[in-house]
This record gives sequence, structure tokens and C-alpha cells, in this order.
Amino acid sequence: MNIIGKRWTIHILLELHKGEKKEKRFNELKRKLGSITPKILSERLTELEAEGMIMKNIDESTNPPKSEYYLTESGRDFVKIIQGIKRWGLKWKFQNEECEKAICKYCDV
Amino acid sequence: MNIIGKRWTIHILLELHKGEKKEKRFNELKRKLGSITPKILSERLTELEAEGMIMKNIDESTNPPKSEYYLTESGRDFVKIIQGIKRWGLKWKFQNEECEKAICKYCDV
Repeated sequence: MNIIGKRWTIHILLELHKGEKKEKRFNELKRKLGSITPKILSERLTELEAEGMIMKNIDESTNPPKSEYYLTESGRDFVKIIQGIKRWGLKWKFQNEECEKAICKYCDV
Repeated sequence: MNIIGKRWTIHILLELHKGEKKEKRFNELKRKLGSITPKILSERLTELEAEGMIMKNIDESTNPPKSEYYLTESGRDFVKIIQGIKRWGLKWKFQNEECEKAICKYCDV
């Protein structure tokens, strides 16, 4: 379970959680996460998949086939924990009531 | 906020949460936590107090005066996050439904 503490893991889980669209493509994640390298992104996605926190769909209709990633129930449950830590931090460490109440599905902070 | 990741911190917060009695004395914590050294326990308690997660009462009626520690609201909020992580682990990693539903205030696992 060391994957949770590794750099970029929490950002990837939150990025998959954000917005209306459940599935996200590799390049979409890469663009949104900015400075992450393709190698690290690929590694983290493989590790998260092995932990059962995300799943991968392969869209065969495109050439080359495209992979789409999405949170499993376990992944969605873990995002709730991350949100709990965020709310705790905002309430007790940063005193940011407005952000504390925001739904980070739509937040680009 | 590095205190959270330091060894023994989570155990100390959970120990202060356990049982009916809200306040706990240094030696009581030391006995319950077993292999922790007095030096490390004292360090962690000082750090947790500085973060506002615990408070210290000094009982002047005894000689020498005795310190008692207890969780603040921030500390109690953080224990809820730790319990959330525990439930997530038990549900998705260890499949231990019985333990998942237990109230760890009374659990000695």
C-alpha cells in the first residue's frame, strides 16, 4: 500500500474524480497534471490498477487503441478520505471556510 | 504538519481516543504504547500540543505535579479520518467486516 504516499498518487486520484466525465484518457491526465512525466504517470496508473483503485478500458475503435482510466468503488471511497483530510486542513490549519465547503469535483485549486 | 507521518503519532492519537476517560497521564500512555521510549513520547506530545491537536492539564494537587493529556476538537476530528482510513483498509484490503464495524474506542487490536 505504499502507493498512497508516493508523489502524484493523490493528484491522480483527485483528477479522475473531477468533472462530470468518469473516464479520462492518459493524455488528458498528463495535460491536467502538468509537470508529471509520462513514465511516472504510467507507473502510478499501473500501481493504482494493481491495488484495485482504478480500472482501465481499452477503446479498440480507435487506431491505435486508446486507454481510458476510471475510479473503482475502492478508489471513490479513498477520494472521500482525501476530501476529509482536505476539509480538516482547511478548517484547522488554513482557516479557509469557503474552500472547506467547496465540492472539489469542480474545483481547480 | 510532518508530525502526522511520524512514527507513533497515530498510535498516540488513537490511545487518547480510546476508553471512557478523556484525559490520560504520561505513564498511562507509556504503558499502553509499550515499546515507545519516554523521550519519543514526550517529543510527540509536545509536537501534537504545538499543532493544537492535544492539550495538557497540569494537576498541581499531586507532588510532583502530574500532566494529563487529552484530544482537542481538531484532534478528535483527525481521529475520525484515521478511523476512515482503517475502515477503508479493512473493507478493501483485509476484508475484515467484523473489525470494520467495530468501534475502536473499545478495541485493543
